[in-house]
Amino acid sequence: MTELDAVKAALKTQAVETPSWAYGNSGTRFKVFAQQGVPRDPREKLADAAKVHEFTGAAPTVALHIPWDTVDDYAALAKYAEELGLRLGTINSNTFQDDAYKLGSVCHPDAAVRRKALDHLFACVDVMDATGSKDLKVWLADGTNYPGQDDIRERQDRLAEALSAVYDRLGDDQRLLLEYKLFEPAFYSTDVPDWGTAYAHCLKLGDKAQVVVDTGHHAPGTNIEFIVATLLREGKLGAFDFNSRFYADDDLMAGAADPFQLFRIMYEVVRGGGLTPDIAFMLDQCHNIEAKIPAIIRSVMNVQEATAKALLVDRDALAAAQRSGDVLDANAVLMDAYNTDVRPLLAEVREESGLGPDPMAAYRRSGWAERIVAERVGGEQAGWGA
Amino acid sequence: MTELDAVKAALKTQAVETPSWAYGNSGTRFKVFAQQGVPRDPREKLADAAKVHEFTGAAPTVALHIPWDTVDDYAALAKYAEELGLRLGTINSNTFQDDAYKLGSVCHPDAAVRRKALDHLFACVDVMDATGSKDLKVWLADGTNYPGQDDIRERQDRLAEALSAVYDRLGDDQRLLLEYKLFEPAFYSTDVPDWGTAYAHCLKLGDKAQVVVDTGHHAPGTNIEFIVATLLREGKLGAFDFNSRFYADDDLMAGAADPFQLFRIMYEVVRGGGLTPDIAFMLDQCHNIEAKIPAIIRSVMNVQEATAKALLVDRDALAAAQRSGDVLDANAVLMDAYNTDVRPLLAEVREESGLGPDPMAAYRRSGWAERIVAERVGGEQAGWGA
Amino acid sequence: MTELDAVKAALKTQAVETPSWAYGNSGTRFKVFAQQGVPRDPREKLADAAKVHEFTGAAPTVALHIPWDTVDDYAALAKYAEELGLRLGTINSNTFQDDAYKLGSVCHPDAAVRRKALDHLFACVDVMDATGSKDLKVWLADGTNYPGQDDIRERQDRLAEALSAVYDRLGDDQRLLLEYKLFEPAFYSTDVPDWGTAYAHCLKLGDKAQVVVDTGHHAPGTNIEFIVATLLREGKLGAFDFNSRFYADDDLMAGAADPFQLFRIMYEVVRGGGLTPDIAFMLDQCHNIEAKIPAIIRSVMNVQEATAKALLVDRDALAAAQRSGDVLDANAVLMDAYNTDVRPLLAEVREESGLGPDPMAAYRRSGWAERIVAERVGGEQAGWGA
Amino acid sequence: MTELDAVKAALKTQAVETPSWAYGNSGTRFKVFAQQGVPRDPREKLADAAKVHEFTGAAPTVALHIPWDTVDDYAALAKYAEELGLRLGTINSNTFQDDAYKLGSVCHPDAAVRRKALDHLFACVDVMDATGSKDLKVWLADGTNYPGQDDIRERQDRLAEALSAVYDRLGDDQRLLLEYKLFEPAFYSTDVPDWGTAYAHCLKLGDKAQVVVDTGHHAPGTNIEFIVATLLREGKLGAFDFNSRFYADDDLMAGAADPFQLFRIMYEVVRGGGLTPDIAFMLDQCHNIEAKIPAIIRSVMNVQEATAKALLVDRDALAAAQRSGDVLDANAVLMDAYNTDVRPLLAEVREESGLGPDPMAAYRRSGWAERIVAERVGGEQAGWGA
Repeated sequence: MTELDAVKAALKTQAVETPSWAYGNSGTRFKVFAQQGVPRDPREKLADAAKVHEFTGAAPTVALHIPWDTVDDYAALAKYAEELGLRLGTINSNTFQDDAYKLGSVCHPDAAVRRKALDHLFACVDVMDATGSKDLKVWLADGTNYPGQDDIRERQDRLAEALSAVYDRLGDDQRLLLEYKLFEPAFYSTDVPDWGTAYAHCLKLGDKAQVVVDTGHHAPGTNIEFIVATLLREGKLGAFDFNSRFYADDDLMAGAADPFQLFRIMYEVVRGGGLTPDIAFMLDQCHNIEAKIPAIIRSVMNVQEATAKALLVDRDALAAAQRSGDVLDANAVLMDAYNTDVRPLLAEVREESGLGPDPMAAYRRSGWAERIVAERVGGEQAGWGA
Repeated sequence: MTELDAVKAALKTQAVETPSWAYGNSGTRFKVFAQQGVPRDPREKLADAAKVHEFTGAAPTVALHIPWDTVDDYAALAKYAEELGLRLGTINSNTFQDDAYKLGSVCHPDAAVRRKALDHLFACVDVMDATGSKDLKVWLADGTNYPGQDDIRERQDRLAEALSAVYDRLGDDQRLLLEYKLFEPAFYSTDVPDWGTAYAHCLKLGDKAQVVVDTGHHAPGTNIEFIVATLLREGKLGAFDFNSRFYADDDLMAGAADPFQLFRIMYEVVRGGGLTPDIAFMLDQCHNIEAKIPAIIRSVMNVQEATAKALLVDRDALAAAQRSGDVLDANAVLMDAYNTDVRPLLAEVREESGLGPDPMAAYRRSGWAERIVAERVGGEQAGWGA
Repeated sequence: MTELDAVKAALKTQAVETPSWAYGNSGTRFKVFAQQGVPRDPREKLADAAKVHEFTGAAPTVALHIPWDTVDDYAALAKYAEELGLRLGTINSNTFQDDAYKLGSVCHPDAAVRRKALDHLFACVDVMDATGSKDLKVWLADGTNYPGQDDIRERQDRLAEALSAVYDRLGDDQRLLLEYKLFEPAFYSTDVPDWGTAYAHCLKLGDKAQVVVDTGHHAPGTNIEFIVATLLREGKLGAFDFNSRFYADDDLMAGAADPFQLFRIMYEVVRGGGLTPDIAFMLDQCHNIEAKIPAIIRSVMNVQEATAKALLVDRDALAAAQRSGDVLDANAVLMDAYNTDVRPLLAEVREESGLGPDPMAAYRRSGWAERIVAERVGGEQAGWGA
Repeated sequence: MTELDAVKAALKTQAVETPSWAYGNSGTRFKVFAQQGVPRDPREKLADAAKVHEFTGAAPTVALHIPWDTVDDYAALAKYAEELGLRLGTINSNTFQDDAYKLGSVCHPDAAVRRKALDHLFACVDVMDATGSKDLKVWLADGTNYPGQDDIRERQDRLAEALSAVYDRLGDDQRLLLEYKLFEPAFYSTDVPDWGTAYAHCLKLGDKAQVVVDTGHHAPGTNIEFIVATLLREGKLGAFDFNSRFYADDDLMAGAADPFQLFRIMYEVVRGGGLTPDIAFMLDQCHNIEAKIPAIIRSVMNVQEATAKALLVDRDALAAAQRSGDVLDANAVLMDAYNTDVRPLLAEVREESGLGPDPMAAYRRSGWAERIVAERVGGEQAGWGA
C-alpha cells in the first residue's frame, strides 16, 4: 500500500459522532432563535443525522442526551437508527436542569440531591444497556459562584464518591468518560475544571474511566494538543467534544475559529495512535444562527480536512529535522502539510467510497432542507429546555 | 469641614442605580432557576427596589429595560416609583430578543431590520419623555459568529447611521449612553467591542453621547481603571454597569470577585472628579443562585465600601510619594486606604442618615422576603424571556 | 487585466519592511542565546536584509532603531543601503533603556527625565531628516508596576504634551506612528495600552499622527482584524508590526502561531483599501532560537501567502452571501480562499519577477549563512543591550 | 487556648522563605535597571535576607539558586547563614542559561545535552547534601517555540527519564519539587505547563516528589485556590512560589496585584491543613523598579496579612452556612474575615515576639539601606546573568 493509499484508507474509516442536540434549537442566555424544520423528537433528530451520514459517509453514530432524548423504548430507537444506517453512540447525562441542582448535583451539600443526581447517572447506564451504547459521558455543571459558597475540598470528596458508584455500575464493555470545563455555568469554582482534575479522578477509578477533551473548555492560551498528547501517552484519552471558539465556550463549528489548532490536535491524535474506534470523536456545537444540518456537515468536513492534513505530515522528514534541532525545517515540514489543499483528496476519497465529492452541494440538492420545513409543522421543537 | 466629614458627606450623597431586571429571574444558557417571591411586573420590581433603598439609603433610582418593563402608562409608573421613594432612571433598550434580530439589529444587513431596531430605540426615547428619564442606554448584541459572515466595516457604517438618528431624536437634557462588550452573544466580531469603538462613535455624535463602562465586558487582563481615568479625562464617561467576574461576563455581585479592582476603579472616579450625578452608577448583575434583594443590598454596600476606601486615600501623601518616585511608598499610601476596615465608618454614616447600621440585618428583620414569597403566588415571574 | 492578473500585480508590488534588530541577537529575560554570524553593526544588518530582499523581492526597506543603529553618518548609511538595493524605512525610537527611564520616559514624574526622552525623540526626527525616512515610530515602555505608583491621568497629560511637541517638529512629509501595547515591561498600567488610547491621542494631534498595530500587543481574545477595519475606516491606520503569539508578546514569526488570523487581518487590509504604500507593513520579531535570516524570509513569505489568499477572496460572491444573510455561504466564500494553496501562485509571481520560485531554497543555496559565520568573527554582536 | 490565641500562635510560627536572587538585580528583556547597594555575592544576599528576618521574624530561611549562588564551600555558607540567624532552604536548579540549552535541557532532542542537564541536577543534590537543604526545586524552561519544532510526546518520555534519575539520587529526607509554568521562555509548548502534568509525573515518581505552585504561572482565569485545595487533598502540594501578576508571570510583590486571591489561597492552605513546615512558602519575585529589601519585607507582611485573615475565618459559621445552602451567608462569613483590618493584630503578634510592630519603619530606621549603598562599591552586582 502506498503512503497515499494509507492516508486514504484512514480517511475512509474515520468516524465523527454527531450529537442529537445539535439538530435542535440552541442559543445564548440572551435569546434562542428558533429555526424552521427543527426536529420535534429523537426520531426526527436521527433522521437529520442520517442525512449528515448519507452525504459525508463519516458520521455513522449519534450521541443521545438524557433527558432531552428520553423515549419509552430505547431498543426501538436503536432499531430505528439502524434502519437509517446509523448507530446510537455516547449517552450524555444531564444533572444541571432539574430545579434541585441549583447548587450542584453530585457535589451538592445536600445528600438527597446527590442521591437524585446519582440515580440519574444510573438511569443513563440503564439507557446504555438498552441501546448498546458503550460510553457514558459525564459533564457536570457543578461548582460555585462565590468564594466561600461551599467547601471546595469536600465537593471533591462527594464527587469521588459519586463517580466511584457510577463506575461500579458499569458493565465490562462500558466506559465512564469524564469531561472537564473551566467555567460556565459556575462562575467561581468548577468541580472538574481542568484535565488534571479529570485525570486524577479517572486514574483512581480504573481503566474504564477516561477523560473527555472538549476543545472549548479551556482557559485562554491553553495548548490543547499538549493535553491530547499527554492523555494519549497516559492511556487516558477517551473522547473529544469538537467545536471551536474565539472567546469562551462559544460552541462554533469545529475548525471555524482556529483551523490550525484543529490540525495540530489531529496531528497529535495521529502521532499518538489515537485514530482508532477506542476514542470517540464527537461534535458538540451550537448552531445558534446558521442552518443546523449543513453546519454539521461542514463541521464533519472540517474535521476530515484537519485529519487529512495531519495524515499527510511527512513523519520521517519531521523526525529528522527535530532530531537535528533545525527549528525552521521541522516547523516547515509540519506547515507543508497544513498548507496543502486537501479538498481534492477528500473529494477523491468520497468518490472512491461511492459518495458525491461535495457533501454540502449534495445536501443542498437533496431537498431535505425544504422537506423538513414543509413537514415539521406544529408540535414543539427540540431544544435545551433551559 | 474636617476631612472625615467630607468623606462622610460624599458617602451620604452617593447613589447607586439598581436595574429592574436584577429583581427578576436570570440564568445561564443551561438553566434559569426560578426563585420564590420574584416580581411579576414592573411595579413589584419597584417595590423590591424600594426595600433596597429603604435599608441602604443609597439606591434611589431604578433603571428600566424595554420591553421587559413595558407598561401602558409610564407616567403612572413614575408616579408609583415616587410614592415608593424612588425615581425611574436609565432606560435600557433591547434589540436582541425579537426573532428579526438573529443577525443583528442596527447593524443588520437588511435595512428593514435596521429600521425596526431604530424604531425601538425611538420608542425608548418616548418612554424617557414619559418617565422623565435622562439617559438612554444602548447596548447592542450586534456582531457575527463566523469570519466572513458579514462585512465588519459596513456594519460600522450602519451603526453610525443609526446612532446618529437616535442622537438627533434626543431632547436637550437627554443623553445617549453607548455600552461596549467584548463578546457574547456574538462569538466572532462584536460591533461595539471595546471602549475605543464606543468613544469614537460618541465623539462624532456630540456632547450628549457618552460611554458606558460595564465592568464585566473586557478582555482578560484589561486595566479597567485606566479606561475610567481616560474617559473621565476626555469628558466621555457617562455611566457604569457594575458587576464582577472571574471569567467572562459572569454578572456576579459587584465587588465579589475582585474587591481590590472595584476600589481602584472608584479611586480613579474620585480622583477624576467623577463622583457626581452626571455619571450613573448602576448595577447590572444576575443573581442566578442567590436571593436577589439581599444580593443587591450587598452589592450596593460593596460599592459603598470601595468608595469609602477610595475617599480615604491620603491624596497629598500619595502625590508626594508619586512625585518623589518612591514606588513602595506610593503603593503603600493606596494600600493603607484599601486595607482599612470601613464598615464601622459606613455604619456611622448610615446612622447619621437615620438608617440602621447594617442593611443586611435590617432587611432580614423586615420580613419582606417572607412576605413576597407568601403574596406573589400565581402569575408569571419576571425574567429575560430568552 | 484578468482578476488573477490583478492579484499577481498586487503581490508583485507588496513590500514588507524588515527591522534591523531582528538580524541581531534577542532573547527572553532568562537568556539571550547568541547565534553565529550575527551582524556587529548597522551595515552588516543591512547586508543581511539585502539577502532577504534578494530572494523574496518583497523586503525593500529596513527599519532602524535608535540608539541600536546609531552611526556617525546617516546619509552614508542610507547610501550604503541604496547600494544594496534597499532603502531605510521607519525610525524607531527607544526611551526605555537609559537608566533614567526606570519609571518612564515622556510620562515620568520628573520633568528632567521627560525632557531627556523628548530630546531623544527630536534626535530621531533628525535621523529621519538625514536618512529620508518618512515615519517615526513611537513605542513607549511607559507605565507602572504597582497600583498607586503614579497618577494614571497625569501621565496622560504628560504624554499628550510630549507627543504634541514631537508632532510639531515633524516635516510636511513625516509622520508620527504611535504604537500601543497591553503590557510588558509595565505590569500594572501601561500609558498607551490599547488602540483606543493611541487613536484618541492621534486624533488630537492631527493628520500626520497615525496608529501602529503590533499583532502581539493585545489582550487574549481581542479581534485584531476588527481594529484594523476600524482604523482604516477612520483613516488612522499607519503601520503594522507583524509577528505572532500564542500567549503574550511572544514575537514569533508572523503567521506561525495563527495563520488564519493573519489572513483575516490581510483580508480587512485589502477590503479597506489598505494595501498601499501609505501603510507600513513591518515585521517586528525575535528569532531567539531559530536562524534569523531564513526566519525573516519565511515570515515575509507568510505575509505574502496571507495576502494572496486575501486577494483571492471572491468579493462579489461574499457580498451577495452577506447581503442574503446566509451565514454558512458567506463563511464558505472566505474559507474557500483561505483553504487554497497559494504557494504555486506565489512561485509563479516570483518567477515572473525574475526571482527563484523558492526563496528559502535560494537562500540556502547562496552560501550566505556559511559566509557570515566564517567572516563575522570577533567584535560585539548586535543585540538589544538589555 | 482561646481562638485568638490560636491564631496568634499560628502567625508566630509562620515562615516565609525568601529567594537569594530577589536581592539581586532583575528586569525584563527590555532592560535590567541596576540598583545601588545590591549584593555582589551569596554572603551579601544572606546579609540582606537576615535584615528581612530581623524585622519580620518570619523569614528564617533563604533559597539558593545554582549556579547564581555557586560557592566553593557550601558548608561554610550554611554556617555563615546560621551566624546571621538564618538557614539555607530550597536549592533551585538552573538548566536554562547554558548555551547548550537553547532547545531545552532534560527534554532536549540531543542525549548529550540531556546528560549535561542531569549532571547539573545531580550537582544540586550534592549542594543539598552540603547545605543540609531538604528540597530540590526543579523548574524547567524546556519547551518549544514553533509547532513541529520537536515531538511533544517524546519530550515527555525524556522528562520522565530524567526526573526518575534525579528522584533515585535523593536521600531519605530530601524531596524533588516539580514546578509548572504555562509559558515563557517557551512560546508554543512547555514541557511542564500545568499542575496536571507536574502531578502526573510526581505520582509516578513517589512520595518524595511533590508539586510547586507558583502563583504567576497559570493561564488567565485559572482558579489557583482550587489547585491548592486539590493538591492538598492528594497529598501532593510541596511548595509555593509566591508573587503576584496582572498579566503573565509579572513577578510583582505577593499580594500586590490581587490581595483577595492571596487570601483565598491561604484560606485553602489553612483549611487543608497545609500551614505546616512540610510545605515551603517561598517568595519568587522580581523587584525591577522598587527597592528590593523593603519590597521583600512588604511581601512577607502581605503573606502574613492574608494568612491572618484566613485564620480568622469563622469555620463553624462557614460550614453551617455552606451546609444550609445559603450562598450569601456563606460568602459573607468569608468576606467578613477578608474585610477585617488585621494590621493591628499582626503588630501585636510582633510585639509579643519581641519585634517592632512595623517592620517597614524598623527597616527604614535601621540605616541598612544607606549602609549597603555606601559599602557595596565596586565588584559585580548579582543578577540573573541573562
